[in-house]
Amino acid sequence: MASVNAPRGMRDFLPADKARRERVLAVIRERYRAHGFDEIETPVVEEYARLHAGIGGDNEKLAFNILRRGLDADAIRAAAEDPAALTDLGLRYDLTVPLARFYATNRAELPAVFRSIQIAPVWRAERPQKGRYRQFLQCDIDIIGDASARAEAELIVASLDAVAALSLADASVRINDRRALDAMLDVFGFPADERPGVLITIDKLDKIGASGVAAELRERGASAAAVDAFEAFVLRTQTSQAQPYGEAQIRAALPEGVPDDVVAHLVGVGESVAAARGGEDAPLVFDPFLVRGMGYYTGTIFELAHPSVPYSLGGGGRYDGMIGRFLGQDVPAVGFSIGFERIVDLVEAGAGEDERSVVLVHDRDVPVARLLALKSGLVAEGARVRLEQRTKNVKGLLARAAADGYRTFATVSATTTRDDLDLKPLG
Amino acid sequence: MASVNAPRGMRDFLPADKARRERVLAVIRERYRAHGFDEIETPVVEEYARLHAGIGGDNEKLAFNILRRGLDADAIRAAAEDPAALTDLGLRYDLTVPLARFYATNRAELPAVFRSIQIAPVWRAERPQKGRYRQFLQCDIDIIGDASARAEAELIVASLDAVAALSLADASVRINDRRALDAMLDVFGFPADERPGVLITIDKLDKIGASGVAAELRERGASAAAVDAFEAFVLRTQTSQAQPYGEAQIRAALPEGVPDDVVAHLVGVGESVAAARGGEDAPLVFDPFLVRGMGYYTGTIFELAHPSVPYSLGGGGRYDGMIGRFLGQDVPAVGFSIGFERIVDLVEAGAGEDERSVVLVHDRDVPVARLLALKSGLVAEGARVRLEQRTKNVKGLLARAAADGYRTFATVSATTTRDDLDLKPLG
Repeated sequence: MASVNAPRGMRDFLPADKARRERVLAVIRERYRAHGFDEIETPVVEEYARLHAGIGGDNEKLAFNILRRGLDADAIRAAAEDPAALTDLGLRYDLTVPLARFYATNRAELPAVFRSIQIAPVWRAERPQKGRYRQFLQCDIDIIGDASARAEAELIVASLDAVAALSLADASVRINDRRALDAMLDVFGFPADERPGVLITIDKLDKIGASGVAAELRERGASAAAVDAFEAFVLRTQTSQAQPYGEAQIRAALPEGVPDDVVAHLVGVGESVAAARGGEDAPLVFDPFLVRGMGYYTGTIFELAHPSVPYSLGGGGRYDGMIGRFLGQDVPAVGFSIGFERIVDLVEAGAGEDERSVVLVHDRDVPVARLLALKSGLVAEGARVRLEQRTKNVKGLLARAAADGYRTFATVSATTTRDDLDLKPLG
Repeated sequence: MASVNAPRGMRDFLPADKARRERVLAVIRERYRAHGFDEIETPVVEEYARLHAGIGGDNEKLAFNILRRGLDADAIRAAAEDPAALTDLGLRYDLTVPLARFYATNRAELPAVFRSIQIAPVWRAERPQKGRYRQFLQCDIDIIGDASARAEAELIVASLDAVAALSLADASVRINDRRALDAMLDVFGFPADERPGVLITIDKLDKIGASGVAAELRERGASAAAVDAFEAFVLRTQTSQAQPYGEAQIRAALPEGVPDDVVAHLVGVGESVAAARGGEDAPLVFDPFLVRGMGYYTGTIFELAHPSVPYSLGGGGRYDGMIGRFLGQDVPAVGFSIGFERIVDLVEAGAGEDERSVVLVHDRDVPVARLLALKSGLVAEGARVRLEQRTKNVKGLLARAAADGYRTFATVSATTTRDDLDLKPLG
């Protein structure tokens, strides 16, 4: 017999938890809408060929695929040599590939610069571990059709506003550009074929430091002179990171040889964010060694940081090449994904309290008609009403109601009328 | 190359559509919460064995199943004789089977009488046709742990309130009981093995009438005397349907031999609904030939009707046997599912208008810093703000913004400040 639990690595949400998640989402959604983003929805599945076109990187391997309907024994046997023939659809592993498909499908009906909100689950068949789930919610905003630094600035300003509305006011954004990374590796002398592996190691700089990265690069057999150049550069520049975000800091943190237009774009993002925040310093940190895992990034990349946690609370970047793969015509695009599952754990939002909410604790012998009339009367007055038959553990029953957001309770006997109801505060 | 469209039979929702759907859902959710129901969420997939335990009826055949990960060529070849070995999980085809599993998993943390809301998509691999989709939203409330007619009454009252809040105030509920149907077929003389087929035909009574049903029953080879008894009974009772809902009408519409407790339960639902509505006549219609397709119903069944449409807008019933299949211990349960996809098409809800919302139509040469400062200032004042660069077709651009809920617009040139902004009504 099947297990009585939710499928491996997936979660049920009970009322208090579900209410808390929906409250956090409502804040994020409301803030993003205020900043001119519009919510859309796509099906949870996409065609297998779309999901496995090399855009999704490692996530492609983690996709849950849907078994093709109507396969006969011969077709199954034939698929032993070609397992992809068993499937035609897959559950999405992110919201970016479906967005690119959506845009290609619906472009004619969308604004020239399209600002989308997607709040929806994605699936990855990862080995389940603490804090990592096989179904989890992603919370993305994207701007399609704007190649300028304004797009990055709008995403960053809206996201900082959204997390500030969740009482994470001190958030900041680490920023870099894939083209600056490429240019830097070129300047150091890493040959093109070494760079993907080099980036994977550089991504560990925060954790293992410059000497750790250099050691690992040497171990991997990266060009020795390039590793030396990298190490010397990191040690020289790391002292200068405290400067405010701006052209001087960016230039100082990069070797000679990074193209001017890349630096100008990074500077433009900072100026636009500052302007949007009434001229105050943009809470941006230029981090020349920020890598971000996804292969589809083509320009700016960024991560959301907060002093209360050592890990990032979200991130994103520019992926100007992707939509062209679907549409056959390049369209610039940039996105920012909030790490909802991390944020919801940080935010101290209860299930929420309903101003007018009543638990009616009734004796067993109260006629149903009286109970329902009392309930309906209170609902009509604008209250949220839960009926609970008295048990031995009334305290436990009221505690659960309080966790679910109820504020008052009243006891009901066989003769209680609306006028007799004595509403007492809960908890 | 894969098609650029959403997968077959599935839909994208663009901003105006998505906003309309969310507005309708917000009303339903708010009303259900007021009536003491609490929202929960389960994963979109359940174990294959759960979804194919014979509970889901015909929907089991329509399930999308997930291809097992890590199958090698030998395992695939072996599965030619046993295709179920290819899959371990499936997308849910309804919200009732997952709810029963959820309740079995989490019972210790739930109230003794648990009133749940589930608003979530389900998937069925049906042949796509107009108005029927392979992914669609279900909107269910269920009461688990209450065997009395109060549970049906709470579901019906809450559902009528929810659709009334959507301006479908004249809705009514057709009601029957599976046990009454069984007893009736027994009285007519249909042997037990004929009854499932007989019910499928009787379900067409609305469409093809008593003589049509009788003809089809004869054609199927049903017992002739039983068909005669059925036809005579229908013709005799159909004239009496105008009576108000209550014991007299129910008795008159049923042959002798239906158990008293079944009639008492049906009467109890009516009394409770009437009490909850302040004593006014319950908008219930007893329909002794209402069948409902699902095999898991064990008692009361009902359908939501509205005079504006010939089809039902929802329905449900009691399924006391199902949770026992998961929990190993019988627990009474009854549910009501609103046909969201039908209702959302009926309700005249626009995308909603945001009181304070502005489209800033700007010239190409407006500095980004100025634009973002203007936008942020308006957002800080509480507005929702969309930036649009002026195109030749400003009218089309404004029409789309109006459809997405914006109410005002202003034009922005290179020198416009907040004080210069001249907000004009949209559309």
